[in-house]
Amino acid sequence: MPTTPRTTLVLLRHGESEWNAKNLFTGWVDVPLSAKGEAEARRGGELLKGEGLLPDLVHTSLLRRAITTANLALDAADRHWVPVTRSWRLNERHYGALQGKDKAQTLETYGEEQFMLWRRSYSTPPPAIEADDEFSQAGDPRYADLGEAMPATECLQDVVARMLPYWEDAVVPDLRAGRTVLVAAHGNSLRALVKHLDGISDDDIAGLNIPTGIPLLYELDEDLRPTTPGGRYLDPDAAAAAAAAVAAQGRRSG
Amino acid sequence: MPTTPRTTLVLLRHGESEWNAKNLFTGWVDVPLSAKGEAEARRGGELLKGEGLLPDLVHTSLLRRAITTANLALDAADRHWVPVTRSWRLNERHYGALQGKDKAQTLETYGEEQFMLWRRSYSTPPPAIEADDEFSQAGDPRYADLGEAMPATECLQDVVARMLPYWEDAVVPDLRAGRTVLVAAHGNSLRALVKHLDGISDDDIAGLNIPTGIPLLYELDEDLRPTTPGGRYLDPDAAAAAAAAVAAQGRRSG
Repeated sequence: MPTTPRTTLVLLRHGESEWNAKNLFTGWVDVPLSAKGEAEARRGGELLKGEGLLPDLVHTSLLRRAITTANLALDAADRHWVPVTRSWRLNERHYGALQGKDKAQTLETYGEEQFMLWRRSYSTPPPAIEADDEFSQAGDPRYADLGEAMPATECLQDVVARMLPYWEDAVVPDLRAGRTVLVAAHGNSLRALVKHLDGISDDDIAGLNIPTGIPLLYELDEDLRPTTPGGRYLDPDAAAAAAAAVAAQGRRSG
Repeated sequence: MPTTPRTTLVLLRHGESEWNAKNLFTGWVDVPLSAKGEAEARRGGELLKGEGLLPDLVHTSLLRRAITTANLALDAADRHWVPVTRSWRLNERHYGALQGKDKAQTLETYGEEQFMLWRRSYSTPPPAIEADDEFSQAGDPRYADLGEAMPATECLQDVVARMLPYWEDAVVPDLRAGRTVLVAAHGNSLRALVKHLDGISDDDIAGLNIPTGIPLLYELDEDLRPTTPGGRYLDPDAAAAAAAAVAAQGRRSG
């Protein structure tokens, strides 16, 4: 048994969504999990239960794919009853005018350099989405209180900027109170958090992908620094296989 | 448009559970919904959406069948993202030593008078469950903070006594703030609430059953009295059919 209290944070990227499967840019469009994604979420919960990593509470985004992932994973871990807190600050990166667009077609239209800049540049957002675009979230009641904070596009730097206040104000107090905290969120909101935790540079974060549905465990020290840089995936073989698949896919990744 | 702010409360009893289907006393035993119960929950959400009755937040018990019902109903109503608050005070009545027992066998063992007393008496609880009974919740981490409030059996009067503080402290402030409030709970915790709202006597509450999965709408006045006594089921035909089925079943009801 450790002699100092452990600070335990578990990150869980949602399982495959219907639009991941269709290769469309999703961002804030509120698509459901695919059947495969639902199975991934349940498996994530079984991994938590198998390791005795039982969340005392969960934080989720306001998007269905993360919410359903949290619901299914917690149910599988017999922790469906824990307190839930949600915030738009954990949402996926807003993909601007690219939301709803086919990724392959976007690549063809704009060319690889522009395409990869939008996808992986730290500080270059895609063009803003118009409020009357069918894939805009302007007017969505869940964001009614955001006012000027409501994005029309985001780069990863923007995600870091809007995610960190939630980390500091809502998640850190739970960790300081000794709770085992689950954060169920998205590829880019979790990359933003991992960048902060592990002190990854603006350039290096481009190379980091977080696989879907595999809980990523961070034990944190008193200064909330990871005791193991990069944390530990509960299924390291599956995580390595997912990373290898991303590397092999190249431009189709992320 | 109404000129005074409406205070809108929606009650939703969970759909059929696996033990409802097996005719076992459930109480605080944390059984899942049956496939039929999941379908009922989704239909409840569609009814909400169809009436434009969109919850701003949800209160649930700590039991899986109410939590899953809330999750599925809110997802079907596109309100999966609303804030969630949970409390043991919304749990089903603790059924004491009867938990896990077959209802028909219990009737045969104890006779109809005793059986109906346990099921419908306002103030007579079943025998207490032993802490080492396989269907006891002693030691369940979700109730670790209850201390002496942790029941080993309950009559409906006990449910009223432990439910009302939650109503006053957690639900009423949301209603006063003008929120549309969904309470996803259980046959007896909702009977306790309806007894309070409609001022039903200790004797008359025995005759009231709330059907599963059909949202029950209460519009409340400034004193939080129902503008329509008994509220209004969003599917009155299905509610009437459920009530008729209960009446026909007699001793197999509730």
